Amino acid sequence: MTQTPPTSSDTVTRTLARYIVQSRYEDIPKSVVHEASRALLNWMGCAIGAARHDTVNFALDAFAPFFGPAQAQVVGRSERADVLHAALLNGISSHVLDFDDTHYRTVHPSAPVMPVVLALAEWRRFTGEQLIHAFVVGVEAEVRIALSVFPEHYDRGWHITGTAGIFGAAAAAGKLLGLDEKQMTWALGIAATQSSGLREMFGSMCKSFHPGHAAQSGLAAAFMAERGYTSSDRALEAPRGFGRVMSSRFDPDVITAPWGERYELAQNMYKPFACGLVVHAVIDGCLQLRREHAPEAAQIESIQATVSPLVLELTGKRTPMTGLEGKFSVYHALAVAIIQGAAGEAQFSTEAVRSPEVVALRERVSAVVDPKMRKLEGRVRIVLRDGRVLDRHISEALGTLAHPMSDQDLEEKFRGLVQAILPDDQANALIQACWDLPQLGDAGTIARLAATA
Amino acid sequence: MTQTPPTSSDTVTRTLARYIVQSRYEDIPKSVVHEASRALLNWMGCAIGAARHDTVNFALDAFAPFFGPAQAQVVGRSERADVLHAALLNGISSHVLDFDDTHYRTVHPSAPVMPVVLALAEWRRFTGEQLIHAFVVGVEAEVRIALSVFPEHYDRGWHITGTAGIFGAAAAAGKLLGLDEKQMTWALGIAATQSSGLREMFGSMCKSFHPGHAAQSGLAAAFMAERGYTSSDRALEAPRGFGRVMSSRFDPDVITAPWGERYELAQNMYKPFACGLVVHAVIDGCLQLRREHAPEAAQIESIQATVSPLVLELTGKRTPMTGLEGKFSVYHALAVAIIQGAAGEAQFSTEAVRSPEVVALRERVSAVVDPKMRKLEGRVRIVLRDGRVLDRHISEALGTLAHPMSDQDLEEKFRGLVQAILPDDQANALIQACWDLPQLGDAGTIARLAATA
Repeated sequence: MTQTPPTSSDTVTRTLARYIVQSRYEDIPKSVVHEASRALLNWMGCAIGAARHDTVNFALDAFAPFFGPAQAQVVGRSERADVLHAALLNGISSHVLDFDDTHYRTVHPSAPVMPVVLALAEWRRFTGEQLIHAFVVGVEAEVRIALSVFPEHYDRGWHITGTAGIFGAAAAAGKLLGLDEKQMTWALGIAATQSSGLREMFGSMCKSFHPGHAAQSGLAAAFMAERGYTSSDRALEAPRGFGRVMSSRFDPDVITAPWGERYELAQNMYKPFACGLVVHAVIDGCLQLRREHAPEAAQIESIQATVSPLVLELTGKRTPMTGLEGKFSVYHALAVAIIQGAAGEAQFSTEAVRSPEVVALRERVSAVVDPKMRKLEGRVRIVLRDGRVLDRHISEALGTLAHPMSDQDLEEKFRGLVQAILPDDQANALIQACWDLPQLGDAGTIARLAATA
Repeated sequence: MTQTPPTSSDTVTRTLARYIVQSRYEDIPKSVVHEASRALLNWMGCAIGAARHDTVNFALDAFAPFFGPAQAQVVGRSERADVLHAALLNGISSHVLDFDDTHYRTVHPSAPVMPVVLALAEWRRFTGEQLIHAFVVGVEAEVRIALSVFPEHYDRGWHITGTAGIFGAAAAAGKLLGLDEKQMTWALGIAATQSSGLREMFGSMCKSFHPGHAAQSGLAAAFMAERGYTSSDRALEAPRGFGRVMSSRFDPDVITAPWGERYELAQNMYKPFACGLVVHAVIDGCLQLRREHAPEAAQIESIQATVSPLVLELTGKRTPMTGLEGKFSVYHALAVAIIQGAAGEAQFSTEAVRSPEVVALRERVSAVVDPKMRKLEGRVRIVLRDGRVLDRHISEALGTLAHPMSDQDLEEKFRGLVQAILPDDQANALIQACWDLPQLGDAGTIARLAATA
C-alpha cells in the first residue's frame, strides 16, 4: 500500500482525491479485478439489450446534430460519437431495462462509470488493466460518497445513482487522464456542482437519463480539471457543499476511511431476472423446481407462493396487459418462468404476457403474504394434478451476495439480452473479451465488439 | 391576451408550459421589448469582455476536442462550435466579470438564457422578434421559478442563477423550437432533473460554469423533449420534484399567477460599475461630483464616504494588491473613480490598483459606517485643499430600478468592455444591431458581429 493516510489538516474532498491518485493496480485483489470483468459483461448485456429502445432512439435523435468526431462507439448500434455523447447514450441504455447491477446498499454502480472508462479507453487506447483500475476506483468513490449521505439523501428525493454516480464518472475519468491531486480535487468539485437527478422522474425516460447525464458530466468535469478549471477544494464537506446541501445527514468518515482494505465493488450484485428484486426468490424457486422435475403446465393444478408483504404491494397486478405491467405481476412472473424456463426481458414482453398458455397458468398462481418473510426470501409450492407437491424455500434469491450469479449465469443472461442484436459469434467474442480484460493491450477492442453492422 | 387560465385540475408545471406555448409576441409591451435590446447589449459587453479570460480559455480547451459542427459563434473570439457548446461557453463568459444583469430580487437573468436564444437564432435563422419573444418568455419562467423558492433555496446553498436559470434556458429554447404543451412540460421536467450549482463554488471558476451549464443543459432539455423524450408532468410541484427537494419553502402560486399582466424582465437592473453593488452609491456620487467640478487629485485634501454597514464588511480592504482585490476596496474604488472618471473593468485591473497616483489618493479616502443607511445608499464629501467641500448624497445608486442606466450609459459600458477586443466600427455595428433587434430578419447577424478575426 502506498496510500498516505489522512491528516488533521486534510479536507475530505482532498483526501478522497489523494486516495484516487495514489491508488495502484497491483494493490487490487484478483477477486475484485475479476468482479470488474463480471460487471462489464453484465453492463454490456443491459446496454446492448436496450440500445434500440425508444429511450435511446429519442436521445440519439436529439443529440446527433451536435456530435463531434467519431471517437467512441454507441454500444449495440452502428453509430459512433464523441466521447461525451457516447458516455451519455451508453449511460442511458445501461439503465433502461432496470436490469443493471446494484451495490448491496446504494447505487447502480456501473451505469454512470462503465460508459466513461469504455469511451476513454477506446479513444485514447488504454489497456484492460487501466480500464479495470479506473472502474474500480470510480465505483469506490461513488459508493463511498453515496454511503456518506444514504439513506437520508435518497429519502429526500434524490436519485442517488445519478447524484453520486457523477463522482464515480469523474474519478474514473480523472484516473485514466492521470490527473494530479489538485486536479482530481477540482474534478470532484466540478462533479459536485452538477450533481442532480430527482426521484420524481421514476416512471419516465428521465430515470435512465440520470446515469447518462452523470457519465457525461463527470467525464466533462475531469476534462475541465485537466485544463486547470478551478473548483472548491471542499466541495463535499463544506457547509454549502454536496453533503450538507443535498442531505440532512452527512458522514465524511465513510469517505476518508482507509483505502484498499476492502473494495465496494466486491459488494456488487447482478439481477438474474428482468423485474423487481422482491419477486426474485419465488422465481428462483420455480426455476429450480422446473430444472429438477420438468413439470408441464398442463400437469399443474396450482402454484402457491408465500412471500414478504412488499411483493403484493409492488407486484400484485393480477391481469397485466403489457410487458411492463408483467414486471409488476408476481402471477405472470411465476407462470412464465415455469413455461419458458427463464425470466429475462423476453419473458416480460407484451407477447409473453398475452400468450394464452401463460395466461392459463397465471390464473392458477396464488400468492399469500407471510409478514415474517424477509424481502429476498420466498417459498413456492407446485401442486400437480397427479397429487405430487413440489416445494422449495429460498432464503436468499439468486443474485444476492449470499447466492451470487455464477460466471456461467452471467454469460447466459448476456446471451439472452443480446441475441436479437448481435450475431452469436460476435456475442461469444465479446464474452471472451470481458473475461480476458486484464490481458487486453487495447481495451477499445471491447467497445468495437459491441458495434452492430 | 390568449392565455387559458389555470384550472383546478392543472398541474403547476403544465400551467407554466401552457403559458409559454400560448405566449404571443404581440402581447409584449414595447417597453419590455426594448428592455430585451438593453439586456442583449449589456450581456454582449460582459461576454465579449470576458472572452479571453482563463475561465473561458480553460473551458474552451477542455471541450474543443468534442465540438460538433460549427453552428454558432463563441462571442468575442474566432471559434465556432455546435450550439450546445456555444451556449455553454457563452454562458460561462457571461458571468466571469460578475458584471451581468440582475433581477431586482433573484437571479442574473440573461446569463443562462441569452446564450441559448443567440445560438439557436444563428443556427436556425430566427428573426429578431422571435429571439426577443423567446428571451422574454425564458426570463419570465426562470424568475417565476426562482421566486417560488427564494430565498430559502438560496440560503440552503444553491446558486439560483444556475438552478433556476436552467428553466429559463429550456423555456426559451422550447419556445423557439415550437414545442407543444406536452413537450414543453417535459422540457421543464428534463431541466428540473439537471438543476444544480452549489454556492460553495463562489470564488472559483465554477461560479461562471453554473450559467453555462444551465444554458447548455436547458437547451439540451428542449431538444430531447422535441424528440419525445418523456419526463414527469409534475417536475416542479411533486413531493419529490424541484420545489420540495431543493427548497424548504415552495410557493407554486408565483408560477401559476396570470401571465402577461407584468413581465419580470421589466425588473431588470444593469451594473454600471465593475464591483459589488454595495459600493455603487458612493462611486456614483464621486463621478457626479467629478463631472460637475472636475477636481484634480492634487487639489484633494480628503474623500470621506458615509456608507451602510455592509460596505466595510464586504469592501473594507485598505491595501489591495491585485485587480480582484481592488473590487473589494471602497478606498480604491473612490480614488480611481475620481482620477479616471470611470469604474469599469479597466479601473479594477492590477495596473490601476498599483498606479502611484491612485495609491496616493487612496490613502486620503476614509469611510465611516452609518447604520441607518440602506444598502444602495451613500454619501461622499470631497474636501479640497482650497477649503471648498463638495458633497453628494445618493439615495439610490445608478443602475437600480429607481435610477436605471440610460441607453447611452449602456453603450458606454459596452464600449469600455469590448474596446480591447473589437474594432470600433464593429462595436458600433453591434450596438446598432442590438437597438435594431426587433427589425432584424436574421437575428444571427448579432452573433456574427460578435466574432473576432
